[in-house]
Amino acid sequence: MHRMAAGRVFAHTRRAPVIGDNGACGLAASDAGNQNMIDLPEKTLPIVHAVQTREEGGRVVEDVDLEFANGERRRYRRVCARGPASVIIAAMPDPETVLLVREYACGMHRYELGLPKGRMDAGETPEQAANRELKEEVGFGARRLQLLRPLSLAPGYMEFVTHLVLAQDLFPERLPGDEPEEIDVVPWKLNDLHELMLREDCSEGRSLAALFIVRELLARRAVSSGDVA
Amino acid sequence: MHRMAAGRVFAHTRRAPVIGDNGACGLAASDAGNQNMIDLPEKTLPIVHAVQTREEGGRVVEDVDLEFANGERRRYRRVCARGPASVIIAAMPDPETVLLVREYACGMHRYELGLPKGRMDAGETPEQAANRELKEEVGFGARRLQLLRPLSLAPGYMEFVTHLVLAQDLFPERLPGDEPEEIDVVPWKLNDLHELMLREDCSEGRSLAALFIVRELLARRAVSSGDVA
Repeated sequence: MHRMAAGRVFAHTRRAPVIGDNGACGLAASDAGNQNMIDLPEKTLPIVHAVQTREEGGRVVEDVDLEFANGERRRYRRVCARGPASVIIAAMPDPETVLLVREYACGMHRYELGLPKGRMDAGETPEQAANRELKEEVGFGARRLQLLRPLSLAPGYMEFVTHLVLAQDLFPERLPGDEPEEIDVVPWKLNDLHELMLREDCSEGRSLAALFIVRELLARRAVSSGDVA
Repeated sequence: MHRMAAGRVFAHTRRAPVIGDNGACGLAASDAGNQNMIDLPEKTLPIVHAVQTREEGGRVVEDVDLEFANGERRRYRRVCARGPASVIIAAMPDPETVLLVREYACGMHRYELGLPKGRMDAGETPEQAANRELKEEVGFGARRLQLLRPLSLAPGYMEFVTHLVLAQDLFPERLPGDEPEEIDVVPWKLNDLHELMLREDCSEGRSLAALFIVRELLARRAVSSGDVA
């Protein structure tokens, strides 16, 4: 987004905060081999001198007057999140397979393969929203739902996040959605992500990131539990 | 984004278009084990009956009047890309390491770890833009630049794409940027992606997707060339 100044390379030591450390998230510390996390020096956040909020094309935008630790003053623009966040769901009918959906993506004017996603309704937890979306889009509910992590869209200037939820122990259940046509559900083997990642019609960063994160996590859990396929 | 209708599960056969098939991209067909790609039935794109374009908060937005193959009519809203796309760069000082940057992300009001990114300038190829951004942000140029694939931000309603470029064979070179402060450059082992993917401050879908794609690609190339570490 912003053009960057030439950087300073520094060595890092081990041990840093990780999602799941505080138990707020579904991840066990062991998921990351947490004893030996990579640590980075603390950064001092810029001082926020002023914020001007305005509506701009249906979005809430803030002009933020910042002072960086070195004294530099800049005005940044950020787009605020409005209402609840969204969820992206990795639903697994078995330990090797994830359910993709293929639907019309108007931004690209083509059918796109990816994980099911949707907005949380007011008052819903990410897990509840994931289960509802799954029933609406894919025709399954899940008995086991685990919040893995938030993924951001464009953290440099957007506040928006999508919670990644792992859904397992599925059962058939449909809720009515409001889509114009039936959605194709495409089971995909986690072992075949190398094929998915090169498909022109599977382009979304969040979907691809979520799939690799789930595969990595499950592989590490299998190793740590001795349950190697 | 859109609430979805309950889906239809179908089995897929093998062989589908993949980036690199037409040689437009840096990927060799063998990168995907292309002989055996997963094929999906063709979909008929909705008919576009009308498009209304307008400026909305600095963005070009289109209201698209669509008719789906089943006769359903809907109006979708899409945000158009303006000017050149952007690039995201996986720069590798050695075959095990990628250079991350840590910089202030105003959308999240925190320092974020991720791959360097930037807008292409008019007339630049993705490879040229990647090399320039790398020199500005990280202080390195690359003798080998390979365009891997476009990544979309939110394909359901945004046209915007970011080209993933792999940069190897690095040499020190700095170009002036316009950042408010020096950027931290953080070398990260591809073997430690499981730690990165759980860090709260490494949240961007495109960065995480790009890192896993590069790791997967290099691992498969090493296997196919017999050069297994």
